[in-house]
Amino acid sequence: MYNFRTDLALERRDIYKKANNIEDEVDGIEAVEETVNENIKISRVKITNQNGQNAIGKPIGNYITIDIKKFKVAGEEEIQKASEVLTEELKKLLDEHIEKQGEILVVGLGNIYVTPDALGPKVVNEIDITRHLINYLPQYVEEGTRPVSAIAPGVLGTTGIETMEILKGIVDNVKPKLILVIDALASRSIERISSTIQLADTGIVPGAGVDNTRKEISEKTLGIPVIAMGIPTVVDLATIISEGIDIFISKLQQDAKSNEHLNKLKEEDSYEEVREALNVGDYNMIVTPKEIDDLIENMKDVVARGINFAV
Amino acid sequence: MYNFRTDLALERRDIYKKANNIEDEVDGIEAVEETVNENIKISRVKITNQNGQNAIGKPIGNYITIDIKKFKVAGEEEIQKASEVLTEELKKLLDEHIEKQGEILVVGLGNIYVTPDALGPKVVNEIDITRHLINYLPQYVEEGTRPVSAIAPGVLGTTGIETMEILKGIVDNVKPKLILVIDALASRSIERISSTIQLADTGIVPGAGVDNTRKEISEKTLGIPVIAMGIPTVVDLATIISEGIDIFISKLQQDAKSNEHLNKLKEEDSYEEVREALNVGDYNMIVTPKEIDDLIENMKDVVARGINFAV
Amino acid sequence: MYNFRTDLALERRDIYKKANNIEDEVDGIEAVEETVNENIKISRVKITNQNGQNAIGKPIGNYITIDIKKFKVAGEEEIQKASEVLTEELKKLLDEHIEKQGEILVVGLGNIYVTPDALGPKVVNEIDITRHLINYLPQYVEEGTRPVSAIAPGVLGTTGIETMEILKGIVDNVKPKLILVIDALASRSIERISSTIQLADTGIVPGAGVDNTRKEISEKTLGIPVIAMGIPTVVDLATIISEGIDIFISKLQQDAKSNEHLNKLKEEDSYEEVREALNVGDYNMIVTPKEIDDLIENMKDVVARGINFAV
Amino acid sequence: MYNFRTDLALERRDIYKKANNIEDEVDGIEAVEETVNENIKISRVKITNQNGQNAIGKPIGNYITIDIKKFKVAGEEEIQKASEVLTEELKKLLDEHIEKQGEILVVGLGNIYVTPDALGPKVVNEIDITRHLINYLPQYVEEGTRPVSAIAPGVLGTTGIETMEILKGIVDNVKPKLILVIDALASRSIERISSTIQLADTGIVPGAGVDNTRKEISEKTLGIPVIAMGIPTVVDLATIISEGIDIFISKLQQDAKSNEHLNKLKEEDSYEEVREALNVGDYNMIVTPKEIDDLIENMKDVVARGINFAV
Repeated sequence: MYNFRTDLALERRDIYKKANNIEDEVDGIEAVEETVNENIKISRVKITNQNGQNAIGKPIGNYITIDIKKFKVAGEEEIQKASEVLTEELKKLLDEHIEKQGEILVVGLGNIYVTPDALGPKVVNEIDITRHLINYLPQYVEEGTRPVSAIAPGVLGTTGIETMEILKGIVDNVKPKLILVIDALASRSIERISSTIQLADTGIVPGAGVDNTRKEISEKTLGIPVIAMGIPTVVDLATIISEGIDIFISKLQQDAKSNEHLNKLKEEDSYEEVREALNVGDYNMIVTPKEIDDLIENMKDVVARGINFAV
Repeated sequence: MYNFRTDLALERRDIYKKANNIEDEVDGIEAVEETVNENIKISRVKITNQNGQNAIGKPIGNYITIDIKKFKVAGEEEIQKASEVLTEELKKLLDEHIEKQGEILVVGLGNIYVTPDALGPKVVNEIDITRHLINYLPQYVEEGTRPVSAIAPGVLGTTGIETMEILKGIVDNVKPKLILVIDALASRSIERISSTIQLADTGIVPGAGVDNTRKEISEKTLGIPVIAMGIPTVVDLATIISEGIDIFISKLQQDAKSNEHLNKLKEEDSYEEVREALNVGDYNMIVTPKEIDDLIENMKDVVARGINFAV
Repeated sequence: MYNFRTDLALERRDIYKKANNIEDEVDGIEAVEETVNENIKISRVKITNQNGQNAIGKPIGNYITIDIKKFKVAGEEEIQKASEVLTEELKKLLDEHIEKQGEILVVGLGNIYVTPDALGPKVVNEIDITRHLINYLPQYVEEGTRPVSAIAPGVLGTTGIETMEILKGIVDNVKPKLILVIDALASRSIERISSTIQLADTGIVPGAGVDNTRKEISEKTLGIPVIAMGIPTVVDLATIISEGIDIFISKLQQDAKSNEHLNKLKEEDSYEEVREALNVGDYNMIVTPKEIDDLIENMKDVVARGINFAV
Repeated sequence: MYNFRTDLALERRDIYKKANNIEDEVDGIEAVEETVNENIKISRVKITNQNGQNAIGKPIGNYITIDIKKFKVAGEEEIQKASEVLTEELKKLLDEHIEKQGEILVVGLGNIYVTPDALGPKVVNEIDITRHLINYLPQYVEEGTRPVSAIAPGVLGTTGIETMEILKGIVDNVKPKLILVIDALASRSIERISSTIQLADTGIVPGAGVDNTRKEISEKTLGIPVIAMGIPTVVDLATIISEGIDIFISKLQQDAKSNEHLNKLKEEDSYEEVREALNVGDYNMIVTPKEIDDLIENMKDVVARGINFAV
């Protein structure tokens, strides 16, 4: 399969269409766009059959992408608006998969000590937890409140334990009815870093993106619905360079410097060659805005508020 | 039972002896002291029977207290020395309860976002994890290496889940042979804040100390030996005030201002009355050195090194 | 002079009146209270002559105290309301001392690495800075915008330089028309920790409170008006214990256990004796809510917004 | 002048030699290398005349580069060794410019809230400050101790004040004999990120690198010697992409796919075109290892120890 180097279904569909010169929609993939206001756009990609799944390497299901422009300079008002949009979309997804009072476990993946990977654990810290109140202090909780619990299980490199092993044990003991997983993603587009949220009702199925093998977190493996909320926080360096080369060659061609060699260069996927040539060695190089710390704080607010109002 | 307001077996024994005017050792409690150097002292308290257990409200077992003086101004050398002492004591305890290559799970209790409660999660981040290497990259690991994993499960207030529920699930899936729990304790003595380590082979059995009900974490509940490493990081405010009043009255008595009322005042345990009178209300007031952030960083280094060399 | 052990003019006045059994107002001190809503109260203390200054050890000038109840559980709405109240009060003070477009330098005192001392530097990071834009990118700034700059000069213990030496140099070079200093204070009341803001147009004149000698920061030393915004973040341990003893004795007296010795005990100021007896030694012990990290984050938002809208 | 896009004199010399096909040394530049051990290498570049200065755009003076390999996985021992090498080199430089007891002001440039820019402020927090002790508590300080003070003045974007304006004022008041500035640099090489230290006795003269205009910090502007210690923490994204394209084209040429167009492509400096084409827009994109938080913590230890022993 083609290496899409992005976790976003929307980007994968675009790449697939471009690579195969498809003008209309791909069989098995439906997509609609909705403009909320001048800064917020929602794209809904639905994979409806096996052909769609094979085409872009994502399981059958719904993928909703919320893009927020100029999020870097977002004030209190934009953060509030973005979290309201998220609340609405998340509510719709939840309503399809769980009853109004069904217990939810929020899982924040990632490493709190690594800035671009800290979003999940940071969000978990802001979630309004009710499960223990319902159990121990029911008099303080409005009747009909949904039990919500949350955990940040850490990453394989610092725990030595697969996330699935940890979640399996917790699900067996806590018995939630649905899991909401928050995860940092890799995108292909610099503009989407900490400015886009993808909601998916298919859970997390490891694929392309930054190199992090881990076992599938989904209804298949855990026995309950898993909604994944993913936010791109990095772009892989070799991806960017590869894209940079493509852009560069395109530009030369426009400038009428084209020749057959250039065309051939573009056809080859230069990713692996560049990766090797740059010899990045031991490091896992990422591309990120210098303002990533601020961006992640803003996005944490959007996501935490979005979840707290939806659940 | 008397409210000791400390998690340290050593302090409890001292309080019990003083309160009951016992000069010799209490039946069922053995205690020896050892001076390592001018700054480090080890006390070993052994509770040998039910009478000892009842007296100080701690289960039968071994309690080792390492006191480090002037830890606030400790340099690299003192940190190294303290971690070596901890390594040695921890090794002895481990050897009594697990084989050389038996798998260990390190658990860092506490809340990373609350300074005096962050020690456990911070230590977990520094532990040398080997379990995943042994599983996935055995070629990079020396033969005979002990599998070590680690987790910071969070606290009930931010997860909504009892720590025991989380650990039970992980133990069922990961199947370690021993658990090493790191926890922040309450002590009665200001000098011990982030300057003392208590090792116990009895696990964690909630008792006095800051008001944190949680279920027992021990061999009885988890089925495998649990070694608890506790570090005092706070003194409860009402404890300190109550102690302040005792000291104050004693001083007045020494100054020959004594009278029968003063004696009577001292006999009563003024803790609850003061707590109520001060009306601390919603807050959980603690007493801590202004330098607690630094102290916790230093102690984190001692504990992480101590564990890494011991396991 | 009496040791008030608080930096709040309001608390000092109350203590002075109580200690001297004054029912009416003190000569040279005027005070009025205003209730904003059920959670926010404003007290205005005006010291009008030398007698008032001598009585409570604070220079002639205006002291405005904003008390916010239940700030620990404050939501977005309460934070917004509190910041609006602060904006209004700050605006009035500024208008008395500086023109609409006069340049302001915001100074955040304190140590970013010590939680209860980090408020000043944290607020500085959130201030909307305009001075460099006006200088370098005037096209992006609305005409008539007031130039604002900000600095966190650190503390003597980590810089080796008196704050005044640093500020003197900056004022000479930057030439602002007014300085707004943000500082952590000591209060006597636990309830005021990170829940009260004192505004004063007298600058910072070291007096009681936690033991921090530093030179005066005021119009007298810097040549331009200095408005001080102080937020209590700690209560000194010995202060609390001394207060605890007073409360305790009062309670005994109410319980009819009174006698002349108890009366005498109360008259003496037990502060120093208790301090000595508790032997807190090298440490600078403070009393703080366990939730201090969260409280400081909330207060940072109130103060930063309050300033940004006022200036 | 050529856009070197690196602050390291060593890299600039290499680029200049390559670009001009110079095999021997450039007139006005002397360079020697020294291998300390398998992981540490020292390069000394000396610019001796105006020709050397013009060639690589760095003032006449000494530039010492310490490269530490495999710093990402450095243990306590390697950190200690690296700091010893730094101490030795720094001592030599200091001895050339200041007397044994001459007062030093350490300046940590950068923004504590932006991970790759936080090194300077973090180091300042670890420096052993003596100036205030010598002034206020001389009895606790060994005679002959050098007065050391330190400050983290912040960045223009968060203070609104040029760093030079702040430093000028402090130098006028504190009157140190030498300034040691710590700064984050841009390099061209990924491997050097947080693994290389450049010492220079020419101060900081803004040139290439990440786009940060600020006024010169040097003996010329401050009247006292300025030693600059710079650590690369980022590589500019467009630099990397431009380099990636060069590498890619070279690789194609080696593979005998060369033609005259490719040669021409390489000759042009593709930097600006790529920058524009990638349309990175508002963001200041950087390339950094995912492990940057850890790397900066390690480097902070090396630099702080290196300085503390040298001064």
